[in-house]
Amino acid sequence: MTDTLPTVDTPESRPHLRIQKGRARRLRQGGPWLFSNEVEMTAEAKALPPGTLVTVVDAGDERLGVATFNPHSLICARLLDRDWRATVDTGLIKRRLAAAAALRDRLYGTPHYRLVHSEADGLPGLIVDRYGDVFSVQANTAGMDRLTPLVVEALTEAFAPSAVVLRNDTPARALETLPQEQTVALGAVEGPVALTENGVTYLADVTTGQKTGWFYDQRPNRAFVANLAKDRRCIDVYSYAGGFGLACAAAGAAEVTLVDRAERPLALAAEAAARNGFADRVKTTQAEAFGEMQRLAAAGERFGVVVCDPPAFAKSKRDQAQAAKGYRKMARLGAGLVEPGGVILCGSCSHHMPLDRFQEEVTRGLHQAGRDGRLLHTGFAGADHPVHPALPESAYLKTLTFQLD
Amino acid sequence: MTDTLPTVDTPESRPHLRIQKGRARRLRQGGPWLFSNEVEMTAEAKALPPGTLVTVVDAGDERLGVATFNPHSLICARLLDRDWRATVDTGLIKRRLAAAAALRDRLYGTPHYRLVHSEADGLPGLIVDRYGDVFSVQANTAGMDRLTPLVVEALTEAFAPSAVVLRNDTPARALETLPQEQTVALGAVEGPVALTENGVTYLADVTTGQKTGWFYDQRPNRAFVANLAKDRRCIDVYSYAGGFGLACAAAGAAEVTLVDRAERPLALAAEAAARNGFADRVKTTQAEAFGEMQRLAAAGERFGVVVCDPPAFAKSKRDQAQAAKGYRKMARLGAGLVEPGGVILCGSCSHHMPLDRFQEEVTRGLHQAGRDGRLLHTGFAGADHPVHPALPESAYLKTLTFQLD
Repeated sequence: MTDTLPTVDTPESRPHLRIQKGRARRLRQGGPWLFSNEVEMTAEAKALPPGTLVTVVDAGDERLGVATFNPHSLICARLLDRDWRATVDTGLIKRRLAAAAALRDRLYGTPHYRLVHSEADGLPGLIVDRYGDVFSVQANTAGMDRLTPLVVEALTEAFAPSAVVLRNDTPARALETLPQEQTVALGAVEGPVALTENGVTYLADVTTGQKTGWFYDQRPNRAFVANLAKDRRCIDVYSYAGGFGLACAAAGAAEVTLVDRAERPLALAAEAAARNGFADRVKTTQAEAFGEMQRLAAAGERFGVVVCDPPAFAKSKRDQAQAAKGYRKMARLGAGLVEPGGVILCGSCSHHMPLDRFQEEVTRGLHQAGRDGRLLHTGFAGADHPVHPALPESAYLKTLTFQLD
Repeated sequence: MTDTLPTVDTPESRPHLRIQKGRARRLRQGGPWLFSNEVEMTAEAKALPPGTLVTVVDAGDERLGVATFNPHSLICARLLDRDWRATVDTGLIKRRLAAAAALRDRLYGTPHYRLVHSEADGLPGLIVDRYGDVFSVQANTAGMDRLTPLVVEALTEAFAPSAVVLRNDTPARALETLPQEQTVALGAVEGPVALTENGVTYLADVTTGQKTGWFYDQRPNRAFVANLAKDRRCIDVYSYAGGFGLACAAAGAAEVTLVDRAERPLALAAEAAARNGFADRVKTTQAEAFGEMQRLAAAGERFGVVVCDPPAFAKSKRDQAQAAKGYRKMARLGAGLVEPGGVILCGSCSHHMPLDRFQEEVTRGLHQAGRDGRLLHTGFAGADHPVHPALPESAYLKTLTFQLD
């Protein structure tokens, strides 16, 4: 973060960003974004430092709101408030945090959730995951990067955190030409943090784990699958720190196998299993997913519940065809492990893999495995990952759970 | 039902239904249907009585399975088994019922669910809703109509029902040129039957109520909304017998208003509220939905939870544009009743209203009402309404729940 900009926002003296004639319709109809080809990219606009707060005006100079602006980004402006007079300060961020927390506190019994999910919570570019009094933050736009000190201040005033970690090591930041960094903005984090989800205790590594340390998005899908796990052998492929698998164990699974390529999350899962008191029913296998599924199938191993929830196979649109093949193969190999009457969950967190295509590929994979069955459940991210109404395409996560004959 | 066909199926002597050259691909890839323009509609085939069991063969006479056949229907054949040697008898139906019941018993703690959901449960055209030991059946194809005596026999042997009701008063039957009829095939039903869903007791009128008497499909969506209802004023528009509203009351809603045009379901809801012990927090209003929402909004009434789950607005594809307007208006009027921070669920059970279009219209309605917010949840029918993998378009129900600022 540079400090060439004033940290105090004064609505009357903000630079104006003008929308091209006839291009304001989407914003007026509720959209929170402006693309760089929709605005007057003047020399003055281009010269604004990335992350500058601007007042957005239409071609007739009507003021439509306040936004963060990055002249170097395809999505060049992100609306913070439709009232251009709103002062963007710690108070505004605190009000957004309070509303976001009120929703989550109503949804869940414990302070373990995604507190802020970007545009949908009125804070574009900001992700905050809450682990009790530890907060893990991502600032994915230049605008939010500049506002981070205010975010940390607002979090401090609202929640008196023991620690605020900045996990600014996200691919999204590259699009905004922001550096990759991981820092502790406040307090300190000693070892993994505990969190509760669906009544199960998990351990997350917020400083070095994937993303912010935990994937809260799968909470409802974990609950759905766990409800089918009682007395069954379960396998959680791409388990990370055991999100699905430990939910199954808590729901009374006879035996749970966690498969992941990385040692550290498996160690956290094993420790969490012990804390929950069911370590005797949970075992971990450090292995590559496809190879391990093939090995187990060849060995005749079968499970009542198979979960395949991989990292994104399609990281960009041009990966889509390759990713489609990957999901198909995953479904085929996973199906080979499902006992008759058992279930398989296939997940995709790829933005670039729409639900209908994902469903088509998974269905083909099951068919290639020679398995008939029925789709029981189509799931998305939990309600602490809300979707902005004007950005339906931002819903990235989908899961499909089939029962196989 | 006529009795001109033998009730005993003998695989070797079944008539053959031949698929046209090059048209067997979809069936081979898992599809359960044949369309009338995909088969050799010979004079012999046309002369077969609707509902005849046939052995499906490809152009090279390879036998691909056993199906029910109706020469007068667009979907002319529906596969019962990919093994043509399978004898379609009470035993086969009993095995399918047992598998279906095992899944539901695992999913839910009580015997109140959709037991059979047509193709996805291997019994094309058959719907069975279970209310404890009362079973409400729909036979929506000529094939299933002919097999109904076997279905009743299988239900009797598997569950010793106190009653089996045939609710053969469905629009789908018209497409198969079947008569509209309501009969009690076994036992007797005295008054409404009780059922439990999400821990709440409801009352269903299985002999004269809508569909089979209850809409089990909304179970997970009712649970989602109820979780947001504590201490709030709630309104359930198009309430029928109180599915959503009583779930909110059970979850601790301060007050629940049920709005429906029909008197009888409201009376059942009121009686159910009394049985649950929260009649003091539930009131009913017999009124037309749009008019009542406008009246309440004008009177300044606001609610923390608004549910709008209407009957299908689009009953056929050509209704789509009109239905779209209807859903938009419903969302606009509903939004006018939502207090700041409150939520609104909009539902559609129209086959002819795909999710993306529905989402677009609802979003427009919220915007017309001048409301910003976030999509918390996209829901579908519960897992007792599974989807055949090759018929993703058969997933008819969708709900969208938004929180509004």
